[in-house]
Amino acid sequence: MPMIVLFTDFGSDGPYVGQMKAVLAQQASETPVIDLLHTAPRFNVRASAHLLAAYISAFPADSVLLGVVDPGVGDVRRKAVAINIMGRWYVGPENGLFDVLAARAMVGQEDVTCREITWRPENLSNSFHGRDLFAPMAARLACGEIPPGVQIDWPVSVAVANDLSEVIFIDHYGNVITGVRASNIASTACLKVDERIIMRANTFCEVAVGQAFCYENANGLMEIAVNQGNAARGLGLAMGSRVAIHE
Amino acid sequence: MPMIVLFTDFGSDGPYVGQMKAVLAQQASETPVIDLLHTAPRFNVRASAHLLAAYISAFPADSVLLGVVDPGVGDVRRKAVAINIMGRWYVGPENGLFDVLAARAMVGQEDVTCREITWRPENLSNSFHGRDLFAPMAARLACGEIPPGVQIDWPVSVAVANDLSEVIFIDHYGNVITGVRASNIASTACLKVDERIIMRANTFCEVAVGQAFCYENANGLMEIAVNQGNAARGLGLAMGSRVAIHE
Amino acid sequence: MPMIVLFTDFGSDGPYVGQMKAVLAQQASETPVIDLLHTAPRFNVRASAHLLAAYISAFPADSVLLGVVDPGVGDVRRKAVAINIMGRWYVGPENGLFDVLAARAMVGQEDVTCREITWRPENLSNSFHGRDLFAPMAARLACGEIPPGVQIDWPVSVAVANDLSEVIFIDHYGNVITGVRASNIASTACLKVDERIIMRANTFCEVAVGQAFCYENANGLMEIAVNQGNAARGLGLAMGSRVAIHE
Repeated sequence: MPMIVLFTDFGSDGPYVGQMKAVLAQQASETPVIDLLHTAPRFNVRASAHLLAAYISAFPADSVLLGVVDPGVGDVRRKAVAINIMGRWYVGPENGLFDVLAARAMVGQEDVTCREITWRPENLSNSFHGRDLFAPMAARLACGEIPPGVQIDWPVSVAVANDLSEVIFIDHYGNVITGVRASNIASTACLKVDERIIMRANTFCEVAVGQAFCYENANGLMEIAVNQGNAARGLGLAMGSRVAIHE
Repeated sequence: MPMIVLFTDFGSDGPYVGQMKAVLAQQASETPVIDLLHTAPRFNVRASAHLLAAYISAFPADSVLLGVVDPGVGDVRRKAVAINIMGRWYVGPENGLFDVLAARAMVGQEDVTCREITWRPENLSNSFHGRDLFAPMAARLACGEIPPGVQIDWPVSVAVANDLSEVIFIDHYGNVITGVRASNIASTACLKVDERIIMRANTFCEVAVGQAFCYENANGLMEIAVNQGNAARGLGLAMGSRVAIHE
Repeated sequence: MPMIVLFTDFGSDGPYVGQMKAVLAQQASETPVIDLLHTAPRFNVRASAHLLAAYISAFPADSVLLGVVDPGVGDVRRKAVAINIMGRWYVGPENGLFDVLAARAMVGQEDVTCREITWRPENLSNSFHGRDLFAPMAARLACGEIPPGVQIDWPVSVAVANDLSEVIFIDHYGNVITGVRASNIASTACLKVDERIIMRANTFCEVAVGQAFCYENANGLMEIAVNQGNAARGLGLAMGSRVAIHE
């Protein structure tokens, strides 16, 4: 069953998500809409791209992902794209948010096709393309229709497929998510922050309360936590902080 | 397709919105429910009324708006109203939240009718009329039924239709929304904060990173932003801060 | 009509709730899913248990409650349970979250049955059993199917049924919810904070703006508020602060 999955930096609290959902409710009324994240790293397309690449894996293959993390809001030179990566559609501005996914698929010799969508709505605001342009595009794709456009090349550097050895998200517990995939390092490897080695564990209940540790999170990324504590605060980590691998 | 649109100051995080939605899911199970905003200006009916007037325009004409921003929680003298403005139903306490919409419709000689709803549920808590009274009213209206009540006059001063030259919302980017409608000022007019003129642009990508500017937002209000920055913090603006028009 | 009700400490903002909802949308597509609370007291099972016991009462008897507040994330010795209390299913880790409800039902000689669920999904992450284990369990129960398992004893101390005379939640207004049920104290009894008596009222509009008062909230718990103000800040109350009854 297709679903539309939302991934934005619009904030959960403001008046933006609801307006997008109203469009989807009207134009794809049978399709469930799931909020994956509306607190994607603000204006930070690179961290968001690594986060999305890991977290979309929990969703069905026939989902349509509507992704808007866009520091260049309203740029009319920016293309609107619908990119199909291994069967799943990704809709949003062409600004790099889908590049990590695309690059990894290309490295794995998987199918990636990209369409520039030339269709435009009658009323297109300057600053809210998520509502006016991308939501209608996602609705159509969820209904099995491909909006008018042309197939284009999607030139992504292979290097973009690489992991990102830095903090890409901090959740409300203070858990620190990095762009390092657990499958790319030894199963006993630890993370290092500054010169401090963070011990590895499988999960929270294996370590003492208050203890910092790193582990493979439920979406395959290396994460740093403190059992019943706040790792970001305790270790002085912030978005973009560098981490290293200690084999 | 009708939808029920929620606009409250209940907060997105607390246990209130879910309880209202459970009522709606039971009593109007076929109707989509959309969260427009649950962080409407707290206890601030006037700012909320201007915000609602602008943001409801993005929703279908046959939506039912359930609006509760109510500093006078639980006042039994307060009427419960279902007001029909240009075909759309608004449900909530009679405390001014719908007055801006009503006044503007009246000025434009549009239809406005107001019903005082006299129906009361079997169990009416003292403090959560949103769940116990207004949600069932909205559910019935969405199902095409008008709850028992009487038509009443809705005496709104024409002056209420006027724009509000102050800050009425600050979003999570720090963008500052004012109660000034872009259609009421020249297309080149700027906003002035204290004595500082904020340059006008069409959208973010037209100005340098870090630059403050004002623009017509996607709901027709004048908004102040800093490209990839936080305008509220940068300009020292808060809810209620005055702005002026500089033609 | 059954609905699935979510009660967690996952945070409303992060990437966790959406992943659970995607599972539910796939496995119980006809069942509405309602967010009761995702900001349940973090790592605090006892306060959460009292909060849940009061707030679940607003939901239909045939709801399925999916509850995860789990400081012991990932402990494989921890049983997964589906406990039926007075006809409603509660799904989650066996760690005490449902004990207040169960103890009160037992004291009232109501039916309580508990099943340990032995079914496990093909892919079970170490740290996100909410998504991988409990969501599928809730989906099955909502569809009328009981997942494979065995009936077990649920040994709950009667003392757990007692009220909790402390702060168990602070909402975004700064209203302070306690674990004291109004039905257990005199209708004129007040709460006492330190040595200060907080006057009792029925609701906000009965007291002056800025006045602190206590009242029976819409879910039957004694709550402390300041009319149009922030009670937690004004009275220096935090999670776990003790309150006393003043008859």
